[in-house]
Amino acid sequence: MQNPLNIAIVGSGLVGSLLAIYLKKAGHSVHVYDRSPDIRKIQFSGRSINLAMSDRGWKALDAVGVGNSVREIAIPMDKRAIHINKDLKFQPYGLNGESIYSISRGTLNRKMIDLAEEAGAEFFFEKKIWDVNLAEATLQIGETERGEWEAVKYDMVFGSDGAFSRVRHRMQRQSMFDYSQEFLPTGYKELNIPANPDGTHRLDKNSFHIWPKGDYMLIALPNLDGSFTCTLFMPFEGENSFASLKDRKQVEDFFEKNLPDTVDVIPNLAEDFFKNPTSTLVTMKCFPWTFEDKVALIGDACHAIVPFYGQGMNAGFEDITILHEFMEEFGNDWDKIFKAYERSRKPNTDAIAELSYRNFMEMSSKTADESFLLRKKIEKRFSEKHPDKWLPLYSRVTFSHRPYSEALAIGDHQKAIMDEVMLLPNIEEKWDSNEVEGKIISLLASGKK
Amino acid sequence: MQNPLNIAIVGSGLVGSLLAIYLKKAGHSVHVYDRSPDIRKIQFSGRSINLAMSDRGWKALDAVGVGNSVREIAIPMDKRAIHINKDLKFQPYGLNGESIYSISRGTLNRKMIDLAEEAGAEFFFEKKIWDVNLAEATLQIGETERGEWEAVKYDMVFGSDGAFSRVRHRMQRQSMFDYSQEFLPTGYKELNIPANPDGTHRLDKNSFHIWPKGDYMLIALPNLDGSFTCTLFMPFEGENSFASLKDRKQVEDFFEKNLPDTVDVIPNLAEDFFKNPTSTLVTMKCFPWTFEDKVALIGDACHAIVPFYGQGMNAGFEDITILHEFMEEFGNDWDKIFKAYERSRKPNTDAIAELSYRNFMEMSSKTADESFLLRKKIEKRFSEKHPDKWLPLYSRVTFSHRPYSEALAIGDHQKAIMDEVMLLPNIEEKWDSNEVEGKIISLLASGKK
Repeated sequence: MQNPLNIAIVGSGLVGSLLAIYLKKAGHSVHVYDRSPDIRKIQFSGRSINLAMSDRGWKALDAVGVGNSVREIAIPMDKRAIHINKDLKFQPYGLNGESIYSISRGTLNRKMIDLAEEAGAEFFFEKKIWDVNLAEATLQIGETERGEWEAVKYDMVFGSDGAFSRVRHRMQRQSMFDYSQEFLPTGYKELNIPANPDGTHRLDKNSFHIWPKGDYMLIALPNLDGSFTCTLFMPFEGENSFASLKDRKQVEDFFEKNLPDTVDVIPNLAEDFFKNPTSTLVTMKCFPWTFEDKVALIGDACHAIVPFYGQGMNAGFEDITILHEFMEEFGNDWDKIFKAYERSRKPNTDAIAELSYRNFMEMSSKTADESFLLRKKIEKRFSEKHPDKWLPLYSRVTFSHRPYSEALAIGDHQKAIMDEVMLLPNIEEKWDSNEVEGKIISLLASGKK
Repeated sequence: MQNPLNIAIVGSGLVGSLLAIYLKKAGHSVHVYDRSPDIRKIQFSGRSINLAMSDRGWKALDAVGVGNSVREIAIPMDKRAIHINKDLKFQPYGLNGESIYSISRGTLNRKMIDLAEEAGAEFFFEKKIWDVNLAEATLQIGETERGEWEAVKYDMVFGSDGAFSRVRHRMQRQSMFDYSQEFLPTGYKELNIPANPDGTHRLDKNSFHIWPKGDYMLIALPNLDGSFTCTLFMPFEGENSFASLKDRKQVEDFFEKNLPDTVDVIPNLAEDFFKNPTSTLVTMKCFPWTFEDKVALIGDACHAIVPFYGQGMNAGFEDITILHEFMEEFGNDWDKIFKAYERSRKPNTDAIAELSYRNFMEMSSKTADESFLLRKKIEKRFSEKHPDKWLPLYSRVTFSHRPYSEALAIGDHQKAIMDEVMLLPNIEEKWDSNEVEGKIISLLASGKK
């Protein structure tokens, strides 16, 4: 048990709520602030991509004893279902039937806040933090940015207030603070596939559905009530773009022509399209993440990534796993804990940012490509025969706890090997031959020099 | 002549003052705001690197008729003077005796404000802009960030308020605004070589002096009064670092050992070392630079770079040249002017950021390297014989008006060619042979495919 501290957490999202549970269990007093109303008392807005919980997320939940509560609201997906021209191909995610788990963000967030309250954390909603005195761990709370503020002092402050964090905003104004934010020219919009009248799912329930269309794509993830939350990713401008779809008729014609098999299952297409906002996608990086032993950023507040690897929440939860490991190691020396935490996490969150950015192309284009699917088959076969020599990149990111930075580096090496393998004459015919297997082994060996 | 507008410029530095002259001459009413006192009435602080005006800067000054006033306070430097172990090597900057010009930042800034006032711009000092309403081109002016503000409305606002621009700060909070700031682990400190008692310079007056030391370096640029402004660039942490020099004795011993020929000419070394601040070096990039036809960023406010190519001010002045070209082309259509301006400048300021970042290594390490100097000699010889085929990178950046992005691309191509040339056996002996010349010609030809 650590010396008990008074700790404030800014942001009651998934990472803030889970962190509250960890800090309560370590013996601290925990106040969680959020500028928004209690998500348990309001309708959640139509601007979310369903979450895909995978091994890193489960580890952080299980270690603090809340994994099973969350499993009750999760639906396993063991494969991609790839929709091409009304045709359907399945591509398993793991080598051994592993799944990722679809969870509605709103449902999970409500559950996490309940669990944190049960653990003894106190929540303060509709409290807006406008500024933080870093050296004093003091929050400035008020109705408006230009109005009266109340100063509330803590021993320590965590900023888990997301990609547009106010806590980070203050740290940004320190000298020597590295920072970047970069928006994609692609945005996203939520759509919905309702349940059948009998409550069953209209598409295969245990799949992550993708309609890969090159520069845009549609995905659908299952919900407990039989519905699917769909997300349309599409450029803001250009030929196939949000800007080009200006009225009901244009939207309906576009889906009829380009996504014909979705027309029957998305009945409220045009209504949802114009009712739901078009959201942006940003990659945000910064450093340092901590200020002395007083303030630390965590989750999206210090490493917001694009959603194409399904790792945003998982990476944020893994921040907590790592922070907790250093709490165990360094006891009450929070200066040391914070330094070790930011040093350990930064290269890994940079790596998952890069992998996530690259994965848009894989999802939206390559999954529609025969040569890509062959590549995956060759990798899968080799990996099954030589599990000690080859863990596919997706599995290393999603179904392991190895550092993301290692996944990026080994993934690049594997890609170079597979590029060579795919150049072999008649690879389509001999993909499962001893020759191909031997080629991979020799390329792996030569890369070790 | 354009339709006259009421224009506010935030920031009375070099770019703000020159922009004021251009806008006055175009017929507008111009108010220039600065949060600091009038620089003409105060002692300028010891945290500046002397400026090196080159062709891009002169062009912008001459086009509005103020170049000759500035030439009166400038000292030409036609070469690098490279100090290695009390030995001195000269390396001419241009192929035809071209110079860059040393100017004290304070002296130039005072002159520019005088010239802008003569042109009819009005200056308001010690007026702090805390926020800008972008859509209304309205400044929020007040004593303190949390105090009362006065709203002052204009037709248009320019933010020339430097790397930590408040105008940009507001634009950053818009969606889809890309932004990055990255600090070097190297800082800098101003030192001083005073004039001889008779007012003459203690070192060659028409040289840019460099003491290249690998991970750190000292430079000295001449002033009109016989002194030199020196700048020590050095890592913050590590073996040879600001952190390692903690008292007078350590500083004096360090210079005695590593920079022995400077000891006699920097009499107030330890005093200046501890009196003057250690400043940071940042590269800042962002996009977009403009908001509708209402607000535009210019100079360091939208592209702060490290000083190792001597192009910071020159790039800012070139922003004005390009903006003015579009004013001539598009008349009163400021929306079009702003869009064309940011689109034209962004790839070029990104390129000079990259070139400036790379040039630290050239100045601090390579200038001490025989092979680098041989490389320069080969380039110079080839360039003199074939001026149509080869303009060295430094000349293209410094003594031409070709786009920076072109300089970066052609410079990379030239580097690849010179890398191959330097691998020729016995290059040291045959560097001025027909064989080497022929090799370069054939490599240039093959690169054109």
